[in-house]
Amino acid sequence: MTIRIGILGYGNIGKGIEWAVTNAPDMELVCVFTRRDPQSVKTKSGVSVVNVNDIEKYKDKIDVLMLCGGSATDLPEQTPKYAKLFNVVDSFDTHARVPEHFANVDKAAKESGHVAVISVGWDPGMFSLNRLYANAILPNGKDYTFWGKGVSQGHSDAIRRIEGVQDARQYTCPVPEAVEAVRRGENPDLTVRQKHTRECYVVLKEGADAAKVENEIKTMPNYFADYDTTVHFISQEELNEKHAGIPHGGMVIRTGCTGWNGENKHKIEYDLTLDSNPEFTSCVLAAYARAAARLASEGASGCKTVFDIAPAYLSDKSGEELRRTML
Amino acid sequence: MTIRIGILGYGNIGKGIEWAVTNAPDMELVCVFTRRDPQSVKTKSGVSVVNVNDIEKYKDKIDVLMLCGGSATDLPEQTPKYAKLFNVVDSFDTHARVPEHFANVDKAAKESGHVAVISVGWDPGMFSLNRLYANAILPNGKDYTFWGKGVSQGHSDAIRRIEGVQDARQYTCPVPEAVEAVRRGENPDLTVRQKHTRECYVVLKEGADAAKVENEIKTMPNYFADYDTTVHFISQEELNEKHAGIPHGGMVIRTGCTGWNGENKHKIEYDLTLDSNPEFTSCVLAAYARAAARLASEGASGCKTVFDIAPAYLSDKSGEELRRTML
Repeated sequence: MTIRIGILGYGNIGKGIEWAVTNAPDMELVCVFTRRDPQSVKTKSGVSVVNVNDIEKYKDKIDVLMLCGGSATDLPEQTPKYAKLFNVVDSFDTHARVPEHFANVDKAAKESGHVAVISVGWDPGMFSLNRLYANAILPNGKDYTFWGKGVSQGHSDAIRRIEGVQDARQYTCPVPEAVEAVRRGENPDLTVRQKHTRECYVVLKEGADAAKVENEIKTMPNYFADYDTTVHFISQEELNEKHAGIPHGGMVIRTGCTGWNGENKHKIEYDLTLDSNPEFTSCVLAAYARAAARLASEGASGCKTVFDIAPAYLSDKSGEELRRTML
Repeated sequence: MTIRIGILGYGNIGKGIEWAVTNAPDMELVCVFTRRDPQSVKTKSGVSVVNVNDIEKYKDKIDVLMLCGGSATDLPEQTPKYAKLFNVVDSFDTHARVPEHFANVDKAAKESGHVAVISVGWDPGMFSLNRLYANAILPNGKDYTFWGKGVSQGHSDAIRRIEGVQDARQYTCPVPEAVEAVRRGENPDLTVRQKHTRECYVVLKEGADAAKVENEIKTMPNYFADYDTTVHFISQEELNEKHAGIPHGGMVIRTGCTGWNGENKHKIEYDLTLDSNPEFTSCVLAAYARAAARLASEGASGCKTVFDIAPAYLSDKSGEELRRTML
């Protein structure tokens, strides 16, 4: 079975999925849907671009539609809407709004008989899976998630909105001492400040007041005020040269103990180091597209998360081959 | 629903499951079955001990039977046999014989309408899961499994069988340089010798020839000849004092690349550091007992591995709570 894929939205994630699907032996990229003028979008693979207004015509030509919009406004509307027409996968990542999004998508997907997989990526996604597995195995324990070192798009955008800032790149960094204390099984209670620092690389507009910009960044509520923040002013050339990538990563660590007196300590750790956050996220999305297609072919419907999907569904290999080569 | 558990075999794994089940809010330990005289077995929790010849009487009193025998001779016979009477979970760990074991167990479990989960633990088990997830996400890559630092029971036993040896403990250790090369994404081709070293702590019998014993260890085929092996002769007191534990662990690492020119590298790493190998393994077995009970209550039957079971089945929390707290 070849899984026919459509992509809605041709940003970083859409482009990453284009690559992942093109490289998957069991998948075929049918087209990219856009809200823009299709003539203005050139795809890397040469696959055709279609205006989203014509999407309904593809109802029987696509097995899974990949939704590549943003979590703030796009996906809350798009995922329930397109789950009425297609099996869909999204990367909805606003943790606090997952229950509401799940309910909306589940209703639409159940009514239309489609499978919708939401909140796929690495956090939520692979990190969530590792939290769940580790909690189920070591109920007497404590878990920690650290992010970085990596670029936070949201924090970079927040800096760019400050008057006098021409461009900016923000890195979230785990505090090494905190990570080591967790790894040693000390179960520390860590404040926001103790877990992560924020490193900002900022290009000023001509005539801008550096001290004022630095103060505005460091005192910005939610984004920076609760963190130890470092600001480096650099040229646009240096930013382009040294900070063009979108690396990210992080770790999920759970420590816990077993034995009648809690005498044996254990550590479970999952680490990601990613040169390209959107390309890795896209690879996870592509694997779950395979799962969505298979679940749908078995007659499943409704909203699913990574918690609800057996690992074997992500692989293009048979159960027999998986047991023989990976178990 | 309280899940009623029976344990067959009261060795290290059986004792670990006794602890894990006693500590699980949704499980109840019914009894321990033994091939020995039940009077001779005292359980830590005080739960009753029953001769295995009476096991059939417990057919409707137990939801999941945990099979705690060895993989060499016990489980190939026990798992198909008891899958005819109960839902079962085992820790069969002879990787090469998994396909055969799966087929035998699947037949028995399907005919009797039970769920049998095989090869549960950390390798096979959690390491297998991480190999599968990482391969599905990064198809262009290479993976590596390192074990240790930890006690290998099989290698310790092999040393103890040498003439002149009174007691022994063998540690398997990953080679740090190999691990670092893998983490850097160099995709090295590693020989057996380049991946692990073997450290042996040996107590000699009175009058034994140390040089002869050391030579016999280092040249033993399969076990030691292909590895850089270090032998330390110590007293029984020192062995008892410093090497009484059964720690283990290891790591599964996959590195791969994405992008049209393979320009972005990624690393996925899963690490375990365990004070007690059997107690951690038992915790994994207990979580999969929960999954077996739930799958059975939904009408599933047949043989399953960790690949076939959705992660949410391992947790005592509802789907709604999992999405709210861990996604």
